[in-house]
Amino acid sequence: MCRWLAYSGSPVLLEDLLYKPQHSLVVQSLHSQLGAETTNGDGFGVGWYGARNTPGVFRSTEPAWNDRNLREVAGQVASPRVFAHVRASTGSPVQLTNCHPFRHGNWLWMHNGFINGFATMKRDLALTVDPAYFAEIEGTTDSEMMLFLALTFGLEEDPPAAVARTVGLIEETARRLGVPHPMQMSVATTDGATTWAFRYASEGKPRSLFHSTDVSTLRHQYPDNPVLHELSDDARLVVSEPLGDLQGAWREVPESTCVVIRSGSEELVPFVPLTMRGAD
Amino acid sequence: MCRWLAYSGSPVLLEDLLYKPQHSLVVQSLHSQLGAETTNGDGFGVGWYGARNTPGVFRSTEPAWNDRNLREVAGQVASPRVFAHVRASTGSPVQLTNCHPFRHGNWLWMHNGFINGFATMKRDLALTVDPAYFAEIEGTTDSEMMLFLALTFGLEEDPPAAVARTVGLIEETARRLGVPHPMQMSVATTDGATTWAFRYASEGKPRSLFHSTDVSTLRHQYPDNPVLHELSDDARLVVSEPLGDLQGAWREVPESTCVVIRSGSEELVPFVPLTMRGAD
Amino acid sequence: MCRWLAYSGSPVLLEDLLYKPQHSLVVQSLHSQLGAETTNGDGFGVGWYGARNTPGVFRSTEPAWNDRNLREVAGQVASPRVFAHVRASTGSPVQLTNCHPFRHGNWLWMHNGFINGFATMKRDLALTVDPAYFAEIEGTTDSEMMLFLALTFGLEEDPPAAVARTVGLIEETARRLGVPHPMQMSVATTDGATTWAFRYASEGKPRSLFHSTDVSTLRHQYPDNPVLHELSDDARLVVSEPLGDLQGAWREVPESTCVVIRSGSEELVPFVPLTMRGAD
Amino acid sequence: MCRWLAYSGSPVLLEDLLYKPQHSLVVQSLHSQLGAETTNGDGFGVGWYGARNTPGVFRSTEPAWNDRNLREVAGQVASPRVFAHVRASTGSPVQLTNCHPFRHGNWLWMHNGFINGFATMKRDLALTVDPAYFAEIEGTTDSEMMLFLALTFGLEEDPPAAVARTVGLIEETARRLGVPHPMQMSVATTDGATTWAFRYASEGKPRSLFHSTDVSTLRHQYPDNPVLHELSDDARLVVSEPLGDLQGAWREVPESTCVVIRSGSEELVPFVPLTMRGAD
Repeated sequence: MCRWLAYSGSPVLLEDLLYKPQHSLVVQSLHSQLGAETTNGDGFGVGWYGARNTPGVFRSTEPAWNDRNLREVAGQVASPRVFAHVRASTGSPVQLTNCHPFRHGNWLWMHNGFINGFATMKRDLALTVDPAYFAEIEGTTDSEMMLFLALTFGLEEDPPAAVARTVGLIEETARRLGVPHPMQMSVATTDGATTWAFRYASEGKPRSLFHSTDVSTLRHQYPDNPVLHELSDDARLVVSEPLGDLQGAWREVPESTCVVIRSGSEELVPFVPLTMRGAD
Repeated sequence: MCRWLAYSGSPVLLEDLLYKPQHSLVVQSLHSQLGAETTNGDGFGVGWYGARNTPGVFRSTEPAWNDRNLREVAGQVASPRVFAHVRASTGSPVQLTNCHPFRHGNWLWMHNGFINGFATMKRDLALTVDPAYFAEIEGTTDSEMMLFLALTFGLEEDPPAAVARTVGLIEETARRLGVPHPMQMSVATTDGATTWAFRYASEGKPRSLFHSTDVSTLRHQYPDNPVLHELSDDARLVVSEPLGDLQGAWREVPESTCVVIRSGSEELVPFVPLTMRGAD
Repeated sequence: MCRWLAYSGSPVLLEDLLYKPQHSLVVQSLHSQLGAETTNGDGFGVGWYGARNTPGVFRSTEPAWNDRNLREVAGQVASPRVFAHVRASTGSPVQLTNCHPFRHGNWLWMHNGFINGFATMKRDLALTVDPAYFAEIEGTTDSEMMLFLALTFGLEEDPPAAVARTVGLIEETARRLGVPHPMQMSVATTDGATTWAFRYASEGKPRSLFHSTDVSTLRHQYPDNPVLHELSDDARLVVSEPLGDLQGAWREVPESTCVVIRSGSEELVPFVPLTMRGAD
Repeated sequence: MCRWLAYSGSPVLLEDLLYKPQHSLVVQSLHSQLGAETTNGDGFGVGWYGARNTPGVFRSTEPAWNDRNLREVAGQVASPRVFAHVRASTGSPVQLTNCHPFRHGNWLWMHNGFINGFATMKRDLALTVDPAYFAEIEGTTDSEMMLFLALTFGLEEDPPAAVARTVGLIEETARRLGVPHPMQMSVATTDGATTWAFRYASEGKPRSLFHSTDVSTLRHQYPDNPVLHELSDDARLVVSEPLGDLQGAWREVPESTCVVIRSGSEELVPFVPLTMRGAD
């Protein structure tokens, strides 16, 4: 559906992440190798952390491969933490407010996949969103709704638990309304210090997800890129699709797993949706 | 906030309505004479009825004065019933799904004004929308929410009653949540055969609204426009701002009034919001 | 590079041409079967003849598959003569003024292919354009330059000769400046009554081009489309790529050929570039 | 026609320049106080110098007051040298390649005003542009043509002389072709180290132009802005319209004058167009 990457490490020019790798995200916007759709031309977005706590978010409905302003900003801005996303709509309008990453305060959120039967479940899910957040919903996507559900369930305190409850609620609502296989996702979220990435599907067979293991992998990946060769050892990438063909450069994240990237270490923990029955 | 016009009569080229009058709607998009904002550059829309029951709707986030495609379509398409709107956002994102007119089946809806305290009331209003319509809400405006409330309250059966109940609900919700002066509106809606236009404000002092009385007025208004001189006698315009300076060409719609335009006759009936207590 | 279609015959809803065939042009914008690029997401355009001599032209930089306004207009407008084009840029900016079809008076022009070495030759070609047309050039494409060269060489009097001289000039300029294989094209042009389509490449191996032979082919092509079954016998399509898989429905235009479609008959004539030496 | 500002000094967040002053450039895009048009909604652009020699340029056809990405980038990017421009088209298409500032290598260029009779003179002017630059012309404005003429006349070696020859050529061409009062301009250009700003009109009465004299003026101008209070003493602004009402904060640049801003000093020198007769 979509393609995304999450970078953390020493500051890197956005251009080096988005345009230079062999199968860069911008190349994937035109021709991706994996994924349900080969063209991800229904908008894009980049979120990055700079001098402020609140990240900047540049989103557009143009195909990423055409956007001159993305190229300009990417050529000038360096950041130690970058989320980037190219979109293939599954039906929602192509408008900026439906482009990822979504932001709330200092948090970013992006999603590849979909909620099956979202139209059927949308009202029930919206009613669960904390009323304090309701008027903040700007777009119409399942992905943004997931962010506001996760916020409702405590994303800012315990992200894995909040996402587990979000997916649990979606699956419970689907069961109640007779919707099969509701959740298909790879999701990434960050508070600017830690990145959490989730791979899960109700039916199994979730969207692909990969992570780089250490910076030597990155250096191997970009042999001709001196910038990346100066990266600190804590640099890490999580991606929906490998950015190059090199063998061994990327490790697939297992199904039903949460990857936690913090200070250059990665931890994989099982991800199990948490139903609300008895827990709320 | 916004400016709009509603035309009905013999088929007229959109260009003759949108570009040719002295104070045409496109001129008003750049410099309006009345209204809270002088620039209405935050998108526009045109709805028109052609060979099908469902009207076409052309909307864009560009300023109307710049849009080449609007000029192209307006130069080719003639229609007996046209709604057109230029937008000055009161805060909602500038995106196509927030542009008027909104469409549901064969109905069109457009609005000038705002719901004061909409962010505070949005969730309560959304919960009142018939669940069957919930997933159809594509944008984030108060105006689109009003359409779905009106549909919930029977717009397709009795438009004046449905709008009265919509405004009644909004005022009741505002009272409950402590929001002052919630409703400020001139609204137009049509099913393709009749046009209803409403002028109302909770506080009094509603947005301006005018109607042309008979086609001789129109002919007087556009002395150099042979197309309009060939109009049938049932041609009528309702506008948020007169399209020219001629004395006597336009009659102001009184406050708290609904104008009904059907087969070349206009009827003015009082408009009183209908609260739900005891009525539902 | 791009994909296009040229229709003439009894009036047909644009939607029936653009969206309904199995491999419709809008489908081709996302995934074409033939052609150098599989994605044609760098803008589109539709030109159509209505009540006026001057055709309407709707162009946009959005991918055709996303454009809601294209769908709206296509669902309302019928026309007896339609040019439509989806673009894959070969380097020129993605802007409306670079989208096909281009218009001059009552003429339309569209092109699939490119002028090799256009940057090298652009100034020399521009100097050949009749000074009266110079300030009318709005975009930066080789395709629009070809139109103004063709106008300079008498497009409005003798289209095949004007195009032959245009291509002759381009090849002569290329020889002089040392540019190999300059011309690669399938071009269509119309004055609203006749359509001329050209297939040619300096090197041979030109872009693909097909035409339908008679309306029974069309009816065969769209078995479920009652509109097309009511077409007059003079309905014809010329396309850069067949709109469906049916055997025998489409006839390939030979290399170095001009197809002339007039009043339901098609004539194929050889196309030979005409150099200016001695002829001017 | 348009409004612009040129800043140089210690690094400042773009947001502080573009959004915070009382009559900021973004406010001027919606309602300017001076100038031929009150609405400058036909696109905008910002150029800024960062870590590279080549400045970044963010341009868009949206009104500046609506552009979310401008606000995002402006909230994250700081720069010691900023050019910003809001556009009111005088007829050229509203497209990114017609938005200022224009860039060539490490140079930026922006213009308020117009060449009278540009359509008449365009071909002659284009022929004067050094053939090496011809294919680099991307847009259709008089302003971009002026940049390429200035480059042809040695902008990179001696900007005041190159601009004098550019204006001289334009006036000479106008005389020859019978165009009255051809040049109306305030122009700014920079190589990243020095800024040159020109105020001139063939007829006299040129577009307004102001400069701040020293940083105490700036601190006075933005009393509540701590960022600006930390500016180095060499901070300077040149603007087409004052950014606030304070008396004495801005000094008008006299007609037919070039302001040179370098290392915190400003020098005013007379500007006289240089005709080519005898000089070339």
